Amino acid sequence: MKYIESKKNDEIKQLKKLSATKNIRKTGTYMIEGFHLVREADQYEQDFVKLLVTEKYQEDRLVKKYHEIAVTISEDVAKDLSETKTPQGIFAVIKVQNSDDLTEFSGKWVMMDDVQDPGNVGTIVRTADAAGYDGVITSMDTADFYQPKVQRSMQGSQFHLPIYRMDIDKAINLAKESGLTIYGSEVNAQAKPYTQLEKQDQFALIMGNEAHGVSQNVLNATDENIYIPILGKAESLNVAVAAGVLMYGLQTL
Amino acid sequence: MKYIESKKNDEIKQLKKLSATKNIRKTGTYMIEGFHLVREADQYEQDFVKLLVTEKYQEDRLVKKYHEIAVTISEDVAKDLSETKTPQGIFAVIKVQNSDDLTEFSGKWVMMDDVQDPGNVGTIVRTADAAGYDGVITSMDTADFYQPKVQRSMQGSQFHLPIYRMDIDKAINLAKESGLTIYGSEVNAQAKPYTQLEKQDQFALIMGNEAHGVSQNVLNATDENIYIPILGKAESLNVAVAAGVLMYGLQTL
Repeated sequence: MKYIESKKNDEIKQLKKLSATKNIRKTGTYMIEGFHLVREADQYEQDFVKLLVTEKYQEDRLVKKYHEIAVTISEDVAKDLSETKTPQGIFAVIKVQNSDDLTEFSGKWVMMDDVQDPGNVGTIVRTADAAGYDGVITSMDTADFYQPKVQRSMQGSQFHLPIYRMDIDKAINLAKESGLTIYGSEVNAQAKPYTQLEKQDQFALIMGNEAHGVSQNVLNATDENIYIPILGKAESLNVAVAAGVLMYGLQTL
Repeated sequence: MKYIESKKNDEIKQLKKLSATKNIRKTGTYMIEGFHLVREADQYEQDFVKLLVTEKYQEDRLVKKYHEIAVTISEDVAKDLSETKTPQGIFAVIKVQNSDDLTEFSGKWVMMDDVQDPGNVGTIVRTADAAGYDGVITSMDTADFYQPKVQRSMQGSQFHLPIYRMDIDKAINLAKESGLTIYGSEVNAQAKPYTQLEKQDQFALIMGNEAHGVSQNVLNATDENIYIPILGKAESLNVAVAAGVLMYGLQTL
């Protein structure tokens, strides 16, 4: 098994660049870190490109399974690659999910129209997972799923349900053709309170940008635009909280 | 009206220290920034200690109203005091809310038992406001309401409802004596799904620490412990999302 001792090694330098969105997109791969996450990625049959471990994992089942793409790294390299102060010493490079695989929808989906904050994007994926949704789509200008800050908020939910980045108009059209009802969300008391909807088994719920909400052309393309009644004096809700209220709210109509 | 030109001025140096929790607690005051927030603080009758404005606000109604405690500052000082890159040039120092004022509860309250992340604490206050709750209590070890990161997430909701920091056991006892039903929240499928509760008009909902949840002695002191069913494969929800799902969920039973 190959051993890399120096953080100046070219392969390590390339891997470090995988925290940048443009390099994730260019290579179609991203890096995950920590035993729990790497084990989950394996359990949920993610496509491994590389496994990097410090010496203490030499005898681990994962190293045996992925021996053809496994590399041993020094503690020094592990520290250099890590996003945490005390790295566990296990990393994997895996392929991002490819939206070309998506030809039709079924069930309950969440879509994000240009959500900017990485914590919000990751939290919405985690909540979609918890609330039993079938998948998540983001527009091309939403914060990238695989950047480290989004990953931290997803907490591994990217392995539990399909997450795709694609043109939002295309996604809406495909969802409609698949028979899903499309709900836009608005901060607008003229929209329909979510509690007044009829229960549906097949729908897509669209959440919008933190400052501007769902864009008008998207709201025009929906079947119904819904809102969460503001019962106090706040002007709006945080978008990840609003997504949670709606995702569970639509499950429990 | 006093004019302060230099950021080396002692009064300015003291004000800069107000971003630290210990100084907020020591002085019982905190600083807010921006025209919208300062105007809201005035509208909701917060207790102003100082108003600081650059020259462009000289003729503003607020400066006239608070002329006895108003100070003019240079653009240089405004930049130094500001948490933002392009300061609006208006700041106020106002008194924190004092839990000694709380002698009994009524309505719907949210309590936080050692929530650590400032963004979560602020978002929970904002959501409590939006969902029409009557107030928020945090335990002594929850992130402080008035630190800048919490303020950013509260978005002014601290002016819309009472927020107090106090001993959580004392708060629970006082809430019980006031006739409120106490709900603890748990990530535990043995607890009661929130959807199965009977509607109550007077209750306190307790949210817990991000890693450890609500502490066991608090769970033991509640009337009922509730949970949000996990319908997918995630292990848990973000605490601010969970708080939102429960706050709206209990409003719409």
